[in-house]
Amino acid sequence: MTETARREGRVTLVGAGPGDAGLLTVRGLRALESADVIVADRLGARGVLDGLAAEGIELRAEVIDVGKTPGHHPIPQEAISELLVEIALSGRDVVRLKGGDPFVFGRGGEELFRCREAGLHVEVVPGVTSASAVPAIASIPLTHRGLATSFTVVSGHDQIDEVGGGRDHTVVLLMGVGTLPHSAHVLGAGRRGGDCPVAIVEDGYGPRQRVTFGTLQTIAHQAAQRKVRNPAVVVIGDVVTLSPYAPSELVDAVRRDSERKAAL
Amino acid sequence: MTETARREGRVTLVGAGPGDAGLLTVRGLRALESADVIVADRLGARGVLDGLAAEGIELRAEVIDVGKTPGHHPIPQEAISELLVEIALSGRDVVRLKGGDPFVFGRGGEELFRCREAGLHVEVVPGVTSASAVPAIASIPLTHRGLATSFTVVSGHDQIDEVGGGRDHTVVLLMGVGTLPHSAHVLGAGRRGGDCPVAIVEDGYGPRQRVTFGTLQTIAHQAAQRKVRNPAVVVIGDVVTLSPYAPSELVDAVRRDSERKAAL
Repeated sequence: MTETARREGRVTLVGAGPGDAGLLTVRGLRALESADVIVADRLGARGVLDGLAAEGIELRAEVIDVGKTPGHHPIPQEAISELLVEIALSGRDVVRLKGGDPFVFGRGGEELFRCREAGLHVEVVPGVTSASAVPAIASIPLTHRGLATSFTVVSGHDQIDEVGGGRDHTVVLLMGVGTLPHSAHVLGAGRRGGDCPVAIVEDGYGPRQRVTFGTLQTIAHQAAQRKVRNPAVVVIGDVVTLSPYAPSELVDAVRRDSERKAAL
Repeated sequence: MTETARREGRVTLVGAGPGDAGLLTVRGLRALESADVIVADRLGARGVLDGLAAEGIELRAEVIDVGKTPGHHPIPQEAISELLVEIALSGRDVVRLKGGDPFVFGRGGEELFRCREAGLHVEVVPGVTSASAVPAIASIPLTHRGLATSFTVVSGHDQIDEVGGGRDHTVVLLMGVGTLPHSAHVLGAGRRGGDCPVAIVEDGYGPRQRVTFGTLQTIAHQAAQRKVRNPAVVVIGDVVTLSPYAPSELVDAVRRDSERKAAL
């Protein structure tokens, strides 16, 4: 403490959701409205700030864009954590606005622990994760009676080899376009089989939103042909056939399969 | 069509989040405010409606409680779907308020398809899932650099046998207290080992909120001793040790293990 008692700023880690201002939480919105500084990712977070502006919601905060997008040079995670600490220690309330949920591939844990280490008070406001919200655009639930009762979420940079279960265990790949040929090959060689349905939803709630369907056998080729790019969420499993946009041959194949099983 | 053109009501499936009004999405709140009828689960949804009332937000809608809680006789899923169709066909806008996210163990898909079958327009508003938001109460992220890069979500009624991966693949059990002895035994016998850390967060954002720690070997005993009950979210994996509430012997065991691995 120096001669005058000085209030430290609060740190709030807010999940921005998948990039649509309407999918921000009520508490997240309040935190943004009362913040002095907002430190935002490009993915998800930027879409939310633009959406709020479009709706006429003006934020008084200074916005610092730490722009993490794949392929671009991001500000290192450690530097972002230090930035949060610095701002809060200078007495300003800072919101760290992260795409999706801070604790689901958000590296929110690292920021939380660094700030706590510095003796700061940190609040975490969970958000809507892209893992479920982006497939919802194509009306694909992650679980559905008779089709799937559990799911696994893997990032594209991660090992796909250890994912268990069959076609009734939904797999969600986040940012998985680059590694899709490998992932589809590994999963197709396992119990799911090459004809397991796949959907790729590109650019979730953004302007380039598009859905591509295929099977584990065909999807890498389809994706290449249609120049599918990240950000994208890949959904793998029989639930894919619930989408009203799913091609009929995909739906028929799963129906035939389940009729065959029922007849056994 | 009868002699006068009649407008059908809209159906909106809204994810209420884990039960805290602040974790409702902005779009979800707007849907509630403009609804004629709200059809609500007890879990999650009820907490949100009570929370809004406590904040002085008055909803003009009639609320129908379809009260799904484990152990009680729920209104059958088919009857809920029919109810939504009936209300919308009578010309009223109905919000189906479901705990968590409608497409993550929410059976939202069934309601969506029944309503579409009836020719109704349905909007889905994703929500914050308890799978990530409830562990966040104890500051446990589902993924964390060096500790976990993927996760699987399973409901307590489901097969645990097919969950792949090791302690660096987080497992989340929803409503898994009843089947915990079996689940812990199966997972402990596999690659995770008996000393894999476990946390149970009871009653998420409710008044009975409590966290119980243990290992796959000890957790069933701990849960029985402390009379742990559903609703609860069980988190299994090394990420559990990130919680500031985790007992030091749990944290030390994981640290020793990772030092051993680093030394190899």
